[in-house]
Amino acid sequence: MAAIEGVNSDLARERRNATFDVENLTNFIYRGPEKVRRRRYIHNLAIKDPVLRRAKPWAFQTREEQYETSLWKNIHINKQLKEFALTEPAERFYYQEAATPHENSPIGLHTAMFIPTIEKQATKEQKERWLPLAESLKMIGTYAQTEMGHGTFIRGLETTSTYDPKTKEFVLNSPTITSMKYWPGNLGKSTNHCLVMAQLYTQGKNCGIHMFMVPIRDLETHQPLPGVEVGDIGPKFGYGSNDNGYLRLNKVRIPRDNMLMRYSKVLEDGTFVKPQNAKIAYGSMVLVRAVIVTDTSRALAQACVISIRYSAVRRQTEVKPGGEEAQIIDYQTQQYKLFPLLATSYAMYFAGRFMYDFYLKATAEIEDGNLESMPQLHAISAGLKAFSTWTCSAGVETCRLCCGGHGYSHASGLPKIYVDCVPGCTYEGENNVMMLQVARFLMKMYQKMQQGESLPSFVQYLNVDLNKKSCMAEDVALKCLVMAYEHRAARMVTDAATSMQNLVQSGKSPIEAWNGSTVMLTWAATAHCHAFVTKHFVETVMNSKMDADVKLALTSLCKLYAVHGIIENLGGFIQDGFFDSNQVHLLKNKLMDLLAEIRPNAVALVDAFDYPDEVLQSCLGRYDGQVYQALYEYAKSSPLNEKEVLDSYFKYIKPAQQGNGSIQQFSKL
Amino acid sequence: MAAIEGVNSDLARERRNATFDVENLTNFIYRGPEKVRRRRYIHNLAIKDPVLRRAKPWAFQTREEQYETSLWKNIHINKQLKEFALTEPAERFYYQEAATPHENSPIGLHTAMFIPTIEKQATKEQKERWLPLAESLKMIGTYAQTEMGHGTFIRGLETTSTYDPKTKEFVLNSPTITSMKYWPGNLGKSTNHCLVMAQLYTQGKNCGIHMFMVPIRDLETHQPLPGVEVGDIGPKFGYGSNDNGYLRLNKVRIPRDNMLMRYSKVLEDGTFVKPQNAKIAYGSMVLVRAVIVTDTSRALAQACVISIRYSAVRRQTEVKPGGEEAQIIDYQTQQYKLFPLLATSYAMYFAGRFMYDFYLKATAEIEDGNLESMPQLHAISAGLKAFSTWTCSAGVETCRLCCGGHGYSHASGLPKIYVDCVPGCTYEGENNVMMLQVARFLMKMYQKMQQGESLPSFVQYLNVDLNKKSCMAEDVALKCLVMAYEHRAARMVTDAATSMQNLVQSGKSPIEAWNGSTVMLTWAATAHCHAFVTKHFVETVMNSKMDADVKLALTSLCKLYAVHGIIENLGGFIQDGFFDSNQVHLLKNKLMDLLAEIRPNAVALVDAFDYPDEVLQSCLGRYDGQVYQALYEYAKSSPLNEKEVLDSYFKYIKPAQQGNGSIQQFSKL
Repeated sequence: MAAIEGVNSDLARERRNATFDVENLTNFIYRGPEKVRRRRYIHNLAIKDPVLRRAKPWAFQTREEQYETSLWKNIHINKQLKEFALTEPAERFYYQEAATPHENSPIGLHTAMFIPTIEKQATKEQKERWLPLAESLKMIGTYAQTEMGHGTFIRGLETTSTYDPKTKEFVLNSPTITSMKYWPGNLGKSTNHCLVMAQLYTQGKNCGIHMFMVPIRDLETHQPLPGVEVGDIGPKFGYGSNDNGYLRLNKVRIPRDNMLMRYSKVLEDGTFVKPQNAKIAYGSMVLVRAVIVTDTSRALAQACVISIRYSAVRRQTEVKPGGEEAQIIDYQTQQYKLFPLLATSYAMYFAGRFMYDFYLKATAEIEDGNLESMPQLHAISAGLKAFSTWTCSAGVETCRLCCGGHGYSHASGLPKIYVDCVPGCTYEGENNVMMLQVARFLMKMYQKMQQGESLPSFVQYLNVDLNKKSCMAEDVALKCLVMAYEHRAARMVTDAATSMQNLVQSGKSPIEAWNGSTVMLTWAATAHCHAFVTKHFVETVMNSKMDADVKLALTSLCKLYAVHGIIENLGGFIQDGFFDSNQVHLLKNKLMDLLAEIRPNAVALVDAFDYPDEVLQSCLGRYDGQVYQALYEYAKSSPLNEKEVLDSYFKYIKPAQQGNGSIQQFSKL
Repeated sequence: MAAIEGVNSDLARERRNATFDVENLTNFIYRGPEKVRRRRYIHNLAIKDPVLRRAKPWAFQTREEQYETSLWKNIHINKQLKEFALTEPAERFYYQEAATPHENSPIGLHTAMFIPTIEKQATKEQKERWLPLAESLKMIGTYAQTEMGHGTFIRGLETTSTYDPKTKEFVLNSPTITSMKYWPGNLGKSTNHCLVMAQLYTQGKNCGIHMFMVPIRDLETHQPLPGVEVGDIGPKFGYGSNDNGYLRLNKVRIPRDNMLMRYSKVLEDGTFVKPQNAKIAYGSMVLVRAVIVTDTSRALAQACVISIRYSAVRRQTEVKPGGEEAQIIDYQTQQYKLFPLLATSYAMYFAGRFMYDFYLKATAEIEDGNLESMPQLHAISAGLKAFSTWTCSAGVETCRLCCGGHGYSHASGLPKIYVDCVPGCTYEGENNVMMLQVARFLMKMYQKMQQGESLPSFVQYLNVDLNKKSCMAEDVALKCLVMAYEHRAARMVTDAATSMQNLVQSGKSPIEAWNGSTVMLTWAATAHCHAFVTKHFVETVMNSKMDADVKLALTSLCKLYAVHGIIENLGGFIQDGFFDSNQVHLLKNKLMDLLAEIRPNAVALVDAFDYPDEVLQSCLGRYDGQVYQALYEYAKSSPLNEKEVLDSYFKYIKPAQQGNGSIQQFSKL
């Protein structure tokens, strides 16, 4: 991006008018000044790296170039991470986000899934065999679960692994087209090994889904091995630099000890040995879901930074005839879209932080043999994953539309953020399935409650008296807002349970009753997640130590999150008379007041996320607000402008003008 | 696409089980068998054209190739349209949609905006001078209104056109960066003329915005003319084949008679002559908005075809343990997403058809000097444009997400449909601005009503008694559904008007009161549009002649549209007690019943749109349902698979494996 002098005066004024010190909020978000300093230091290591800076913007590259650029960048990054001894996941992430913002890695699954799965599911001997090769990139691997015809329902996978005791080998096979592995990241062109999930058959019996280490390309030539058909699945909405791949295995033989045998085993004679506890291997999927919550909140936060800064710079339409055109951030309709999303990005970020901490705590307990919090861990991670990805990806797209026409240009950075985060709705457990898993948990809890058993803290609200009306008054107390969400969730859980009971009483089977209530169950699960996120936001703001001015600003934002959610989902809050019409009126007025209250702090609240321009990659979201000069520079550098007059002019336009423009005449199209 | 034998058996069964004859519905949609026959004939002309078939799929092309391919295709299409004497707009459209599905044309604005604007706004002499050149592509032009810093608010445009009586020329100038034209389609590389909207200055006075014909590139060499800086604005979310451009004019001189002078004039001495009626030139923008309603409904219809056919083919998750995996269209949650969108695509299609007919009728009246329906025409076209683009583009994205992972691949065709239709929310009048224009009209009508004046038919509902409760009963009568929407709209209009009155009474100026109520005004305008579309859908189904089975199927769909809209916006319908809790319960049950009722007809209802596979361009939406074979073919043809082992393996991976993978060492990245 070209160097432009000075900060746009509107943006400078916004910053002067904020009611709190941005640095204090940044310190709160990233847990203290030392961590903030470290984050900036690591961002700068990547930003200033002369090798990484050689790449041209991704949007000016072909897909093939995107793949190649990301490949060399990530090989370089791997080396630099070692050189700088960055081992903490958060610190590695900071380096990566500044080094390849919003870009997928062609070897990312190797580090994120392949090595961790070996570490968790391989035996000691296997680890000693594979990890050194993997660390030195001799083995480059990925993780292949999804098949062309099979996604979230893992038991439906068709790939088979049949043990042959004569040769002491497994025979891996893709018996149908739908059984071919399809979508695994980096599978197409980059990797030479693949952890394949397959139906294990031994001694004539199916023993369920297990994981097998399958070499797919020659370590010397990188050519596919015999029986292996492998390739890229073709261009997608985004993820241009990721060679998501397909893999078809035609009776490929691997040695017995290529089955990952830390838990389950197949002995030499073909005897299958079950793990002591079937659920123990479950943790890594929960971790990925936990991480997604934070990732998707970051995507929304970045979109808010871009959209809110631009809304402060952009002036459009005189408010009074003949007067100055207004900053579009001063329009109530613009505030009504952007400020609740800003609040959402904070809410989801805090929820993601909670989720990660809870994951660490719960898995430590599980490792110690205490499985008590496992159902909760599962339900919270599934629910927050679905709730956050749906909410945040839709929010990113709203931010984009709030930038008018320029939001549609890749110059805005927003389309890329969107296509990068929206797959989170689908991968690692499709959101509708996730919500139904939450619903199943809630139904169990509801039953427990009916039987008078005690409930885990985060569903204790199910005990509320549904006849009790809201305590909402003029002050719109946070306590009353949380109660409202819990009331709605409790009522929706009750409604769904009642619906199922009614269907059973009318003669349906429990399965039919479930299937006939899944819409209501999804409503209940979503309301539950909404209540959880709201409550956690409130508790974070109320119970954390922070600067008083910051607390005031965050409290407004937290109230906006809660009030806006009520108004946008009003039916669910009032259909049983929980709020009376005065209270609804009061909440609507409060909503408009909160928009005005947050208005002077909007830019400071996005500045506090502290994203360098190099991470945002946006002409509209620049810290200095010099958006128009930046757009102009972007346009001038468009590859279509490399030639003043394109060859196609001479090939097609000129002949057409001369009346002999029949395309059939051209030998080469 | 590869030829694959036979129709998927699930899809074949769906078709057998439909309760009506698809052809009857197709005939109703496209207004009779003769028009359907003609539409198929024209589609096939394009599909079977050997020249057009030479192009490879757009997703496998670089942006430069996309531009070039679309250029030669469209030059060829122009020729074919003449050859086949296709002159009717609908017929030209059918040819175009099958010839370049979802692809932008680098010379499309020439036909769609440049020539029509000359026809409408140029004098007879100007038309004689320009139209023959334009028809033969000697002049290739576009229409440049939007500037980098100025969009929907036209009065804010900065480009100036200053009359110089000495030379009898206009001097066109871009005084600032923000004044440069930015976004006009085809401006970057394709066109040699541009209709420039600019502030006219003559005799020292500003005379408002007018249109000027500016040559921008040399007719022989295609090089930019002196004082002209022109280029492509760079890659975008979509529209890859469109060279949306920028244009900076540095005191460019054009002859006086290059101002389009049918209405306003500048005489030789510089005297400005006003048009007799300032509003008369307004029609073409309304036409574009009217067309957008139908276009966006088509995008949603196509997305529904793809998503619903795929949902009938896709099987996922056993419903009973050990049982067969279910078609995902059998999941209530999937039905709850897709069937209301299917209903919406019909609702919006009928609304678009109405809009176009109304446009023709109203403009004929206007041409006759009767301006009575102008405010209504403006309000309906603005409102339906905004309501349909918001609803349909969000719906397309929901359809995409309903296809799981495969929806993210360009093989699904869905990302392309989305990026192609979503700009409709922004161009030709930004949607928020459009809704506020509707709101302004509604406020005027509200005032009229309060003063006892008569209202145009489509806002007569404002007269309803807001204290009257709903007539909704077990049968969920269409009449009661329409009344519900009209009640809600009337109440929201009243609420917004009351809010403004209260603000004025509290001492705010009328402008401040307006600005402080724009969120409520937008709610009111949206509710108004929703009521209009619902009512029109109901009337179309009730009052049109059609086959009885078709009528039954469409009636279910129409009810679903209405009931789903109530449940999803429940707060607005119940906050004043219009429905009691029994009625809400009844509507929720009805909603689930309607999903089950529509289920057997879902595939037939999308088949009826009669889109050939060549228009859909989707592996998932194929008529024969052979989606997996098609996905496999798509993957195999991915450009990344042209080489089994990519050069980047030898350049980057191999050296890294050998421990000398320092990227710095490579001379060429």
